[in-house]
Amino acid sequence: MAYSLAVVGATGLVGKELIDLLEKRNFPLSSISFFASKKSIDKTIAFMGSSYPVQKADPAIIKQADIAFFCTSSKVSKEIIPSIDSSTICIDLSSAFRMEENIPLIIPEINGHLLGQNKCISSPNCTTTIMLMALFELHKQFHVKKIIASSYQAASGGGKKSLDLLLKNTHQALQKKETVHPYGFNLFLHDSFHDENFYSEEEKKLYDETKKILAHPSIEVSATCVRVGVLRCHSLSLHVEMEKSFSLKEVCSILERAKGVQIKLFATPADASGKEDVFIGRIRKNLFHPRILEMWVVGDQLYKGAALNALQIAEYLHMQTVMEEK
Amino acid sequence: MAYSLAVVGATGLVGKELIDLLEKRNFPLSSISFFASKKSIDKTIAFMGSSYPVQKADPAIIKQADIAFFCTSSKVSKEIIPSIDSSTICIDLSSAFRMEENIPLIIPEINGHLLGQNKCISSPNCTTTIMLMALFELHKQFHVKKIIASSYQAASGGGKKSLDLLLKNTHQALQKKETVHPYGFNLFLHDSFHDENFYSEEEKKLYDETKKILAHPSIEVSATCVRVGVLRCHSLSLHVEMEKSFSLKEVCSILERAKGVQIKLFATPADASGKEDVFIGRIRKNLFHPRILEMWVVGDQLYKGAALNALQIAEYLHMQTVMEEK
Repeated sequence: MAYSLAVVGATGLVGKELIDLLEKRNFPLSSISFFASKKSIDKTIAFMGSSYPVQKADPAIIKQADIAFFCTSSKVSKEIIPSIDSSTICIDLSSAFRMEENIPLIIPEINGHLLGQNKCISSPNCTTTIMLMALFELHKQFHVKKIIASSYQAASGGGKKSLDLLLKNTHQALQKKETVHPYGFNLFLHDSFHDENFYSEEEKKLYDETKKILAHPSIEVSATCVRVGVLRCHSLSLHVEMEKSFSLKEVCSILERAKGVQIKLFATPADASGKEDVFIGRIRKNLFHPRILEMWVVGDQLYKGAALNALQIAEYLHMQTVMEEK
Repeated sequence: MAYSLAVVGATGLVGKELIDLLEKRNFPLSSISFFASKKSIDKTIAFMGSSYPVQKADPAIIKQADIAFFCTSSKVSKEIIPSIDSSTICIDLSSAFRMEENIPLIIPEINGHLLGQNKCISSPNCTTTIMLMALFELHKQFHVKKIIASSYQAASGGGKKSLDLLLKNTHQALQKKETVHPYGFNLFLHDSFHDENFYSEEEKKLYDETKKILAHPSIEVSATCVRVGVLRCHSLSLHVEMEKSFSLKEVCSILERAKGVQIKLFATPADASGKEDVFIGRIRKNLFHPRILEMWVVGDQLYKGAALNALQIAEYLHMQTVMEEK
């Protein structure tokens, strides 16, 4: 059992990580093709010791694959995915279809069991995935009622452009050059306004996607999303109210057994960079309310927040097929 | 009416800012002396066009001043201040005496009226001061019940050592040199544990000092304090529950009239650097609870968080004396 794969957006930050992970995790594939926007079609991609051309993202070619990964913007996903009229399974990392009712939004450890015959599967927002990896097993036990989140998001979450800006502005700052909106040694608020309530799109995603992934419509998620001067890995300061009471010992015992997470007291982005697990630290009980948990969460948003989660969706589908055949 | 001044800790980051502000704000002084630890006593300090020697911090000399500013560590303040047995007013920026019952903890805009005949006055923790500047006028109107705070604190809050480490580690990171606990393009949790509840000293200060400054023992403050890769200015993501209901229009109207604060939608540390005002942005009503306000606050922790606040205490004392004489 091996699959023909297509990676669309293969030259972007997330696309590159996905290609690395396909090699590392040895996903069973019979063939692979790489696609990108017009400006990248002269490039080649090294994969498993061979060199592959980067092709223009043409639905007619992409639809020859068994599984196509879309490491693309929401705009590009919306343009291409609906025109894939074959049996190709599209795993979309963009926000294009995440909130559509008939499209599953999947973190395999949490709701992989929802995967069925869907032609399109969405992988969630990076910050949401990292947050829910830390909370899911606790939610099963103690029922999360309310989350208050402040994020510390890395430059690479904004793509290569944002990463390059941080490096360039930092160089300039070290040389005492002044810039108008410096990113070097500074931080930014997410400034994409979503609605009349002044919450940004990123903040709204944390709320909407959490409700869908946990299948828990009454959960409250209030977030403030901030871009900090970190190259890689998103962090979150979380304040979580549970329905049921808990002890810190129970919390730690659950997290120690949970898949895909690790307890590390003072975990930093540097600790989590290039790691598949999400790190959880500073686990405290709120001083005033015994059912409130305070915690710190850091995860590699290019890995579990994006490429790794998408690949794990494909791995889960593969495992389902293998099990059915047995 | 002019004062003889002593600045103890004159060569540190905060001491230098205080000296700049004494010049800029033209505080009425008849003489000034500068003190530091033994290792700095060969240095000189330029002030108002003259050059002054840095003297060893000897209580017998410091006590000749009318007002002595202590830009020192808690340890040094504890050693020196109790042995100043003259009428010298000691304005202490350290945490040494902040929680002592008979020593006022002052942010002039908030509780300057408490200043009386005290020989020692404490200036609060930098993060606490910045947070309370944003909240005080709202508290008067709507009564703050609960604060959940996540901080984004600058390197300079940890003194010159921390600032130099950030610059050095960033240089190393740009040259792809690996370091064990990198600060460059990374962030840190405050790791000074205070008590059995796993809250850090900084987080505990936000709670304890807020209670004392607002004279509001039942207020709840839950903080997570984080050191980010910013040179100057502390930021806070705040979630604030009020006793009374409010509209965003009322909140903005109060903040627009409040002294020492400015509304700026996406204020960043770069915007607030070297500014006397504290900036407030991303003012939102919580989506689920009408009495909860979400906001973003940035302030220069070397200015209003430290040197400026200490100087404003002296200015307030001067004003009181002038008013009494009239």
